[in-house]
Amino acid sequence: MCEKNRFDKLDSRISKTPLLNGDSVAEKRHELCEYFHQTSSLYEALFETINKDEAYFLRPEPLRHPLIFYFGHTASFFINKLVLGNYLDRRINEDFESMFAIGVDEMSWDDLNDDHYDWPTVDEVRGYRNQVRQCVDQVIASMPLKLPIKQDSLAWVVLMGIEHERIHLETSSVIIRMLSLDHVSEHALWQTCESFGPAPRNQLLSVQQSEVKLGKPMDADTYGWDNEYGKKEVFVQEFKASKYLVSNQEFLEFVEAGGYRVDGFWTEEGVNWLHYTKAKMPRFWIKRGDQYFQRNMLEEIELPLDWPVEVNYLEAKAFCNWKSKLTGSFIRLPAEAEWTVLRQLIDTDQPHWNQAPGNLNLEHFASPSPVNRFETKGFFDIVGNVWQWTETPIDGYPGFKVHELYDDFSTPTFDGRHNLFKGGSWISTGNEATQHSRYAFRRHFFQHAGFRYVESDSPEVPVDTINLYETDELVSRYLQFHYGETFFSVDNYPVACVDACLTYLQDTPKQKALDLGCSVGRASFELARYFEKVDGIDFSARFIQHGFSLKKDGCVRFTIPTEGELVAYKECDLNKLGYDGVKHKVQFVQGDACNLKPAFAGYNLIFCGNLIDRLYDPLLFLKTIPDRLTDNGFLILSSPYTWLEEYTEKSKWLGGIKVNGENFTTLDGLKRALSGRFNLLDCRDIPFVIRETQRKFQHGVAQMTVWKKTS
Amino acid sequence: MCEKNRFDKLDSRISKTPLLNGDSVAEKRHELCEYFHQTSSLYEALFETINKDEAYFLRPEPLRHPLIFYFGHTASFFINKLVLGNYLDRRINEDFESMFAIGVDEMSWDDLNDDHYDWPTVDEVRGYRNQVRQCVDQVIASMPLKLPIKQDSLAWVVLMGIEHERIHLETSSVIIRMLSLDHVSEHALWQTCESFGPAPRNQLLSVQQSEVKLGKPMDADTYGWDNEYGKKEVFVQEFKASKYLVSNQEFLEFVEAGGYRVDGFWTEEGVNWLHYTKAKMPRFWIKRGDQYFQRNMLEEIELPLDWPVEVNYLEAKAFCNWKSKLTGSFIRLPAEAEWTVLRQLIDTDQPHWNQAPGNLNLEHFASPSPVNRFETKGFFDIVGNVWQWTETPIDGYPGFKVHELYDDFSTPTFDGRHNLFKGGSWISTGNEATQHSRYAFRRHFFQHAGFRYVESDSPEVPVDTINLYETDELVSRYLQFHYGETFFSVDNYPVACVDACLTYLQDTPKQKALDLGCSVGRASFELARYFEKVDGIDFSARFIQHGFSLKKDGCVRFTIPTEGELVAYKECDLNKLGYDGVKHKVQFVQGDACNLKPAFAGYNLIFCGNLIDRLYDPLLFLKTIPDRLTDNGFLILSSPYTWLEEYTEKSKWLGGIKVNGENFTTLDGLKRALSGRFNLLDCRDIPFVIRETQRKFQHGVAQMTVWKKTS
Repeated sequence: MCEKNRFDKLDSRISKTPLLNGDSVAEKRHELCEYFHQTSSLYEALFETINKDEAYFLRPEPLRHPLIFYFGHTASFFINKLVLGNYLDRRINEDFESMFAIGVDEMSWDDLNDDHYDWPTVDEVRGYRNQVRQCVDQVIASMPLKLPIKQDSLAWVVLMGIEHERIHLETSSVIIRMLSLDHVSEHALWQTCESFGPAPRNQLLSVQQSEVKLGKPMDADTYGWDNEYGKKEVFVQEFKASKYLVSNQEFLEFVEAGGYRVDGFWTEEGVNWLHYTKAKMPRFWIKRGDQYFQRNMLEEIELPLDWPVEVNYLEAKAFCNWKSKLTGSFIRLPAEAEWTVLRQLIDTDQPHWNQAPGNLNLEHFASPSPVNRFETKGFFDIVGNVWQWTETPIDGYPGFKVHELYDDFSTPTFDGRHNLFKGGSWISTGNEATQHSRYAFRRHFFQHAGFRYVESDSPEVPVDTINLYETDELVSRYLQFHYGETFFSVDNYPVACVDACLTYLQDTPKQKALDLGCSVGRASFELARYFEKVDGIDFSARFIQHGFSLKKDGCVRFTIPTEGELVAYKECDLNKLGYDGVKHKVQFVQGDACNLKPAFAGYNLIFCGNLIDRLYDPLLFLKTIPDRLTDNGFLILSSPYTWLEEYTEKSKWLGGIKVNGENFTTLDGLKRALSGRFNLLDCRDIPFVIRETQRKFQHGVAQMTVWKKTS
Repeated sequence: MCEKNRFDKLDSRISKTPLLNGDSVAEKRHELCEYFHQTSSLYEALFETINKDEAYFLRPEPLRHPLIFYFGHTASFFINKLVLGNYLDRRINEDFESMFAIGVDEMSWDDLNDDHYDWPTVDEVRGYRNQVRQCVDQVIASMPLKLPIKQDSLAWVVLMGIEHERIHLETSSVIIRMLSLDHVSEHALWQTCESFGPAPRNQLLSVQQSEVKLGKPMDADTYGWDNEYGKKEVFVQEFKASKYLVSNQEFLEFVEAGGYRVDGFWTEEGVNWLHYTKAKMPRFWIKRGDQYFQRNMLEEIELPLDWPVEVNYLEAKAFCNWKSKLTGSFIRLPAEAEWTVLRQLIDTDQPHWNQAPGNLNLEHFASPSPVNRFETKGFFDIVGNVWQWTETPIDGYPGFKVHELYDDFSTPTFDGRHNLFKGGSWISTGNEATQHSRYAFRRHFFQHAGFRYVESDSPEVPVDTINLYETDELVSRYLQFHYGETFFSVDNYPVACVDACLTYLQDTPKQKALDLGCSVGRASFELARYFEKVDGIDFSARFIQHGFSLKKDGCVRFTIPTEGELVAYKECDLNKLGYDGVKHKVQFVQGDACNLKPAFAGYNLIFCGNLIDRLYDPLLFLKTIPDRLTDNGFLILSSPYTWLEEYTEKSKWLGGIKVNGENFTTLDGLKRALSGRFNLLDCRDIPFVIRETQRKFQHGVAQMTVWKKTS
């Protein structure tokens, strides 16, 4: 067992995340052990600032659990993940590991948590934390260890637990900052910056256009959370960025100009928040008479005008809107890529630096510090001091994959309602203090966060739309069906259908194809390999929107059920499927197969996969479709003929009915409807498998009929 | 083209069904051609008795179509079946072939048909009949022909059309009998028996016990309808049978004793019919003053007392009940097997006989004749004169298969509401006049039918329950799943599960096994191969009833959807699956797995296939199940873990949920629930396929977990 550290003084080593590689397994094991205990001791040292046990049970932020939860939570997290990964077969305290498992995700500002908990005493939790220490210590001592440490190893789970505690070191410090002053005491380890005074006048500095690469490489040498990995290249236009973070003094102008009273400066979401909270100034400001003060973590001081203002995104955005109006220019927050351009000005990163290039990693202060203290190439506080809100809602990079032991770390935030902040704060340590670290919170959330503003030439905000996880079960079932892996050795159905189509079209010109009932679009992309132009048409907007997204962004994300309510997270990447060079030939349009616009005509091929038994009037469709084909064009239908009254009233079924008392199949119906205008060239079976859960599938056998138009 | 016959005189050759075998294809072709034309001409000759075209459009029986329909129907039938079988690619008259396709199935006595038809003229139909004659004639002349004629040949379809017309020869004669006398004329071909007078006194004669074989052999030498084929051996107890069919005179005693006014003589169905129709005597009797008359097909005569009475089953049954009361003995109608014992007294059959051994095959009269005219070994009218109602609801014999071009010939009548009659009437010809011929009508239906009665020692009627076609889609899906063919090369699931179970049980005693959630019972039967005793328990009566039926009757029938509303007819025969020697070891019981009676205990194996995710309280089940096993007994669970709130409220799901924010699988839940009392020996996947339609299947992969009870 490593030494159980106590700290009298902060030391940057304590806060640096370990390298995943190294030459000596024994040394790495020791390093991990130290990092584990240091983190745990540091976390406990934060809670030493609370001077009364009763304060652990208060809820200074009614939207969150009391601090006792967070005190237990980071310890129980280790045990819960080790059990989940089958690395531990025995729990330490089943009750605690349940009670301390789930934090309150603050969904909205009025989403109050009314659950009642029968919390244990602080001493009981301390005892539990010690038990966990022993347990994890033994795990570290005895675990198999290979270098470099990989994501599927036990050591990674240990690092996950440690970095998780480092996150809560920061978030708990925010909650402590919300306790009343009589519940906290000064502490030798947590020393505020003592310097404050008037702020420097901010100014906008030019930043050259630049190509940036976002995303942490898979083979990076430090631990990362799922959302950091991947690769995204972005071209960033020239812009101007403020030299300093916005200071309290600069923000005070907005407050005093009535910024909190004028809805017009606020986004719609901001207005709602403002009206609900009746906020009049930043969360940690206090006004007594004409005098402003600021609450820091453990003390209240006169408003430090040259420190960065700490606000949520909504307030930052309102400030920018006010500033835009004032200056007549386009002022806003930076996008993630713009922040990254500035970050490139710094040529080092934790854990490699000797000294943090900002008020970061607990290397300088236990509070913010003046905005003109840490300079890099003309800009100040590129990292550190306070986190910097961006315009960018968080999303995974292309290639995003969840870690299977923590599949809800990021995914719930990929919802367009969580904005990224970057750069870290004075108390961001470990992974949080690395350049790839990216955290996102709801836009009304308070952390140690402020902002820098930028000015651009256009009102457009260079932010991609979010790849929301499609959770509609039917839609994601079809995304999986079209773009996911195959099962039972049955080939991908849209691809198999297109392959089959092509065997009939050998000498037919391939100018224009129509994929009617294209659903989420796979056959359309596949047809684009061979045709000059492909139209994909579907009746359902919620299906076809994924065709659009894929063409535009190259990527869609979806969850698929595995068992019960559990889901797996999936991504479809069009490039990986080889459609990058052909996707521009596809046009997706929402439309009704039974009532297509006249413009949709002149096709050499019309392919209808699993469509005919989903139309409200299949006969009407068949009567009108020949005119949309070229002479000698092909109509190719493929369907399992699953007629359901839900889609097609029975009187309109093409077949699968008794006609004059006799069995009349869909093939009979197709022949009757098409034989005047077409020759039936072939009739074959094409199997398909649609995944419903991990253990349940629809396995069908479609009949493909091939009709050549008579000239 | 053969000669188009006209008849001046009946000739028994005309009415004999052709042999399927022979030495000369050319002669057989000629024979079929003659038989076709003779049948058609005979049918037309029947309609020649109608003396006004307008009479074709009347509806003397409001529950049936007018005669114009039947005039066209037998012709259009040929075309419809030839088209259905892909033997003809062009229709003669699409309108007629639709209009004349479907007769009215008289569902109940008050189920009036109000459809309006725009019938063609009689001459138009005559013209159509001639076109069909030419067409079929050409088919016969040019069709491939191999002897013997098999069911899958075109010649069989031709025979089907001819025999179908022969059926309607009889049923149309009944409708003509219902026309008013001024619409019909005498006809040289249709000469009534002129002899009638007082009836002989009926008496009961003993019939020795006997073993009879029911069913026409598959290799029989004449055409047969689907329901005639198969094989059923029945042991018939000694009984007494009336020497004569019941005569008008004998029935008159019942009428005059007030039989139609005393509900007590009638079955419940009979009472309902009686009250609705207000019948006071048999359908073709007329009473004027004190005098009774009888309507024959073309004339009215004084009630012929020695002719057989013509009644429906309900009236015949009421007569028997009255007679029972009168005599204090058990009088009823014969069962099919009892009739067959009598039929064995005749040693010949059509077409082999020189002369019909009864008033049958149009060889004697165009009407009934006295009941004491045709004698065989002491009994009269064993065949012929009028059909004889039996107590037996029609059912297929074991091995029953529909002919695929006429799959609704018999199956709709296998509903327990259609009783068989046997023996044929004076106008039964062709197939109808053979010994295996068996027709069934609803019990209130009138044909040329009467009855013979029998006396037995017991009130029990020796009639098997009907193998109703299970049409409940879910139940028949499971019958198919357990007993039907396999798909996608995936082994039968219950059998595969039992096979897997046995690999773990090698040295375990095999006294008692429990198949919990046995559904329709396949695993129970399979377990009975190895265990001394097997209990099959299921919560659902509608599933487990098929286990019961299979154990008792060895056979269940069901329909499965093919496409749309179309179905295929299926039979499961336990003997063919090899369970005949072990089925006695199985006991099926309806029960609740979460609340089993204490008696269900002491098992060496409890197997639960696809059960755990269908229980309302799976944890309760798991907690109580160990006590039902012997020491070292095995609990083997197999399931795809498809949790649905429809079956199990979410708070009771074993897994597939988040527990303390972490993924918690069903396997996790099983381990948690069972680990105290069991060792987990193995965990494996077993695939299964459940057919939904011809082209749609559920393909699942169940997880089997093997738990050995700790001693």
